[in-house]
Amino acid sequence: MADFFAAHRETLDRALQAVSVRDYWSPYPEVPSGKVYGETAKADGEAAFKAALDSKFDLHQPTDGRWIGSEISPYGFALGTTYPAADVEQLIEASEAARPAWAAAPVETRIGVALEVLQRLNKRSFEIANAVMHTSGQAFLMAFQAGGAHAQDRGLEAVAYAYEELRKIPGAVLWEKPQGKNPPLQLDKTFRIVPRGVALVIGCSTFPTWNSYPGFFASLVTGNSVIVKPHPGAVLPLALTVRIARKVLSEAGFDPNVVLLAVDTADAPIAQTLALRPEVGIIDYTGGPAFGGWLEEQARGKQLFTEQAGVNSVVVESTDNFKGLCGNLAFSLSLYSGQMCTAPQDIFVPAEGIETDQGHKSFDEVCDGLSLALEKLLGDPDRAAAVLGAIQNEATLQRIEDSKGFGTVVRASAQVAHPQFEKARMATPLLLKVEAAASEAYAEECFGPIAFVVATPDAEAGLTRAAALAKTKGAITAGVHSTDETFLAKAEQAFAEAGVSLSENLTGQILVNQSAAFSDYHVSGANPAGNACLTDAAFVANRFRVVAVRRPHAA
Amino acid sequence: MADFFAAHRETLDRALQAVSVRDYWSPYPEVPSGKVYGETAKADGEAAFKAALDSKFDLHQPTDGRWIGSEISPYGFALGTTYPAADVEQLIEASEAARPAWAAAPVETRIGVALEVLQRLNKRSFEIANAVMHTSGQAFLMAFQAGGAHAQDRGLEAVAYAYEELRKIPGAVLWEKPQGKNPPLQLDKTFRIVPRGVALVIGCSTFPTWNSYPGFFASLVTGNSVIVKPHPGAVLPLALTVRIARKVLSEAGFDPNVVLLAVDTADAPIAQTLALRPEVGIIDYTGGPAFGGWLEEQARGKQLFTEQAGVNSVVVESTDNFKGLCGNLAFSLSLYSGQMCTAPQDIFVPAEGIETDQGHKSFDEVCDGLSLALEKLLGDPDRAAAVLGAIQNEATLQRIEDSKGFGTVVRASAQVAHPQFEKARMATPLLLKVEAAASEAYAEECFGPIAFVVATPDAEAGLTRAAALAKTKGAITAGVHSTDETFLAKAEQAFAEAGVSLSENLTGQILVNQSAAFSDYHVSGANPAGNACLTDAAFVANRFRVVAVRRPHAA
Repeated sequence: MADFFAAHRETLDRALQAVSVRDYWSPYPEVPSGKVYGETAKADGEAAFKAALDSKFDLHQPTDGRWIGSEISPYGFALGTTYPAADVEQLIEASEAARPAWAAAPVETRIGVALEVLQRLNKRSFEIANAVMHTSGQAFLMAFQAGGAHAQDRGLEAVAYAYEELRKIPGAVLWEKPQGKNPPLQLDKTFRIVPRGVALVIGCSTFPTWNSYPGFFASLVTGNSVIVKPHPGAVLPLALTVRIARKVLSEAGFDPNVVLLAVDTADAPIAQTLALRPEVGIIDYTGGPAFGGWLEEQARGKQLFTEQAGVNSVVVESTDNFKGLCGNLAFSLSLYSGQMCTAPQDIFVPAEGIETDQGHKSFDEVCDGLSLALEKLLGDPDRAAAVLGAIQNEATLQRIEDSKGFGTVVRASAQVAHPQFEKARMATPLLLKVEAAASEAYAEECFGPIAFVVATPDAEAGLTRAAALAKTKGAITAGVHSTDETFLAKAEQAFAEAGVSLSENLTGQILVNQSAAFSDYHVSGANPAGNACLTDAAFVANRFRVVAVRRPHAA
Repeated sequence: MADFFAAHRETLDRALQAVSVRDYWSPYPEVPSGKVYGETAKADGEAAFKAALDSKFDLHQPTDGRWIGSEISPYGFALGTTYPAADVEQLIEASEAARPAWAAAPVETRIGVALEVLQRLNKRSFEIANAVMHTSGQAFLMAFQAGGAHAQDRGLEAVAYAYEELRKIPGAVLWEKPQGKNPPLQLDKTFRIVPRGVALVIGCSTFPTWNSYPGFFASLVTGNSVIVKPHPGAVLPLALTVRIARKVLSEAGFDPNVVLLAVDTADAPIAQTLALRPEVGIIDYTGGPAFGGWLEEQARGKQLFTEQAGVNSVVVESTDNFKGLCGNLAFSLSLYSGQMCTAPQDIFVPAEGIETDQGHKSFDEVCDGLSLALEKLLGDPDRAAAVLGAIQNEATLQRIEDSKGFGTVVRASAQVAHPQFEKARMATPLLLKVEAAASEAYAEECFGPIAFVVATPDAEAGLTRAAALAKTKGAITAGVHSTDETFLAKAEQAFAEAGVSLSENLTGQILVNQSAAFSDYHVSGANPAGNACLTDAAFVANRFRVVAVRRPHAA
């Protein structure tokens, strides 16, 4: 058996350093280049993806014999891939049976398996990128980065954090308490790391890998058995992941059922049944607040980690780079058609306008600037396709339609044509302007390419409103533009109190949407947008427990 | 202003080492000796305690003008101490107002304040011991140790764990992402530790300090403001603690309302109102499962740490020291009249008896051995008083009475006289024998000096039953006696799966009840006896969150 831990030790050590220093680092190249991944990698990945279409995706895991699957590419075709279905009882039973040996394995063995899985996922990045693209609707480059390398980064980050916690627990200790002139009291103590049980990972349709990997790997290496329940619209990326994990587990001598795929359909969902099983000790959930709220209420006593929804804001007070501001915000609104939990929705601008390097800009001129920047970014169809990707869910198109009346249309959403996939479901951002006091629509999450420029009496009022929204509705990101350090300090304080990280004066290539593994704490866990951070110590430390055995030391 | 952090740095460093190595260590001497604490310390402590009787205990904190207090010493007199009452609104308002400056203080400043508080608590150990004795009913030596030195140890342990987590978070970082031949992308990032809000500590009547200090200190040093809500029957130990903390906070330049006492009475409890306030982000609770269950249901979205109840078992398979076994168990059952969350309740013995160094002992002979050992331990009134202490709650006496019919009485509970306090509420353990299958009474917690010797078909059946009880009803401790390593290994596995630590073959001075700071993880958090461990990384890491600010690096 290969010593996976030794093979990846250097990567792990570097990851441990990275999460501590939190500067830039990534072991998984984000450039889909043949020079990095091999000259045939792109073609191989595409071929592998195509081979999975219209066929049975076997996982050699317990099944009730049904083959189910209903994925539709947002680019306009049915995947036709089916997966082995199983009833919940079968899955739980297999997961329970597989866990003891896994839980009893040395920490380093489990960590090694996880690192090997990550490495193999990395090698398959092109295949996974195709799978992510044609389930989430992300454009290929984004699918390669967010669904491939960056998701792997997030997985490795979780492994590093977990290892940091696990290695703190000593194995055997001689406890020796002095008794004055008498001999000391002596106990031999051994500490055993015990898992919580079955860990359930509930994936989402927009970032099936990125959002699932932290919980998946954190639960896995802490000794739990894991059942992955993908969104029925985005199964393939996680099915590939599960298949690779099962392969590595087998090679390492473990029951591959330590990792299982629980596939379902929108008509017959099984997440609730799984979540309420007493064997399930941990749930990682990414998705809407309706099911998230249900879990919070019903899954009491389980470790629940959620990333739900929020209303992200950008507050504009002034800028020394108006063009950069507009261009950067246009990109933030357009990237993956705003289907990111980090995309801004509300842009607060003083009703009287702002001071810029181009002189005073009225509120309407700011709106026009944004509109023009969107036009410039999305005018070219190739570029538009590469930025926007496709709309994952039909309901999002309807939401755009339904939102038109929520304000005055600054720029209408247009259904653009994809140069390669003519049936792709695409839409440019709908940009509305509203007065803060006259509307409440902007105060609710409008998921997708829908954004509001919100007029407030002054910049401070915008800041107050944005921070209040973050605190009450949740927010994962916040942005501010100001040349005034005093205003920036106020914004830092206000958003810190609302539990949201802040990006200041982004006018270049970095977007408020972007969250870098090993450096940015994704989600604070301190407002309703989610109860946990991906990833920090709190995200991993409660996925296992410690029980001890102590006995008198034999003289 | 004194540099408290520098003054206590050495203690902190040693505590950090101790929680990592988990061998024996304590900075606070557990011997109530004049040589250690000063020749007048005993008299001074008693005098200070007496001065607090029948008088107003001022805390100089917000109050509505009422003075309330209803503590009755289990040794037979009313304390007569009253405390400034406040309505919940006042407390929350003061706590909220005090927090920002505390949260903004450097980590080391907060840690330094906590360490200074602990040191001053230690110096006041005699006074606190008297207060703990005359509220909990613990005998003086135990009150000095568990309520003084050991509670301080647990507080320091929490401070050390919190510091370990807090110091992981970097302050300012330059994030620099290479861009091939182009200049790197550069962001300045600063990470800010933000507290959860108001932390509520709900104390219990039996271990007012020991069980409250971990949550109190963990919440405090992570930047939260803390409201301490003692059990109305055990206010004084925590009032003393709060007064000392307020004094140190003031000296360090902070608003003393960072720490507040919320005193109430059994007739007009305020814990529910406090717990549901939206400003409260953290709740530490020790007490019964009724209120614990209510908190789990109602306090959703808050960080809740509980230690509730359970059914602790000892499984007897065989022994090479029958006398030691009986003596050790008799002590475990008698110490503080079984009013410990760690005291065993059920002793599982095979119906056909056990093999011992004294030859075969029948089930009844094992019962007799325990009974004799109790007689020997408690026959002398002075010794009985020192071991048993007093019964904290009248209801416990009633429970002994009500439990008599739950089995065959092996040894009746007797109301013994205290040599010093003639009105002391005292009772020796009630020891019952039952057949495992014929009774269910032993499967529920019978808090106080009530224990069952449970006959099972064989030792394995006892182990299975004990582990099942731990898993379903909760358990904080477990014990096993066996000369068979195979049986011990089975017990280790069974109790590990039930999430409870195991003590093997204790026949000397160490009791299953005892839990040593810096070494034993108290409560696993893995069964219904409590959802958290005192103390580990998970106990502290989620009491604060991190939010970042990032902006383009100025060239």
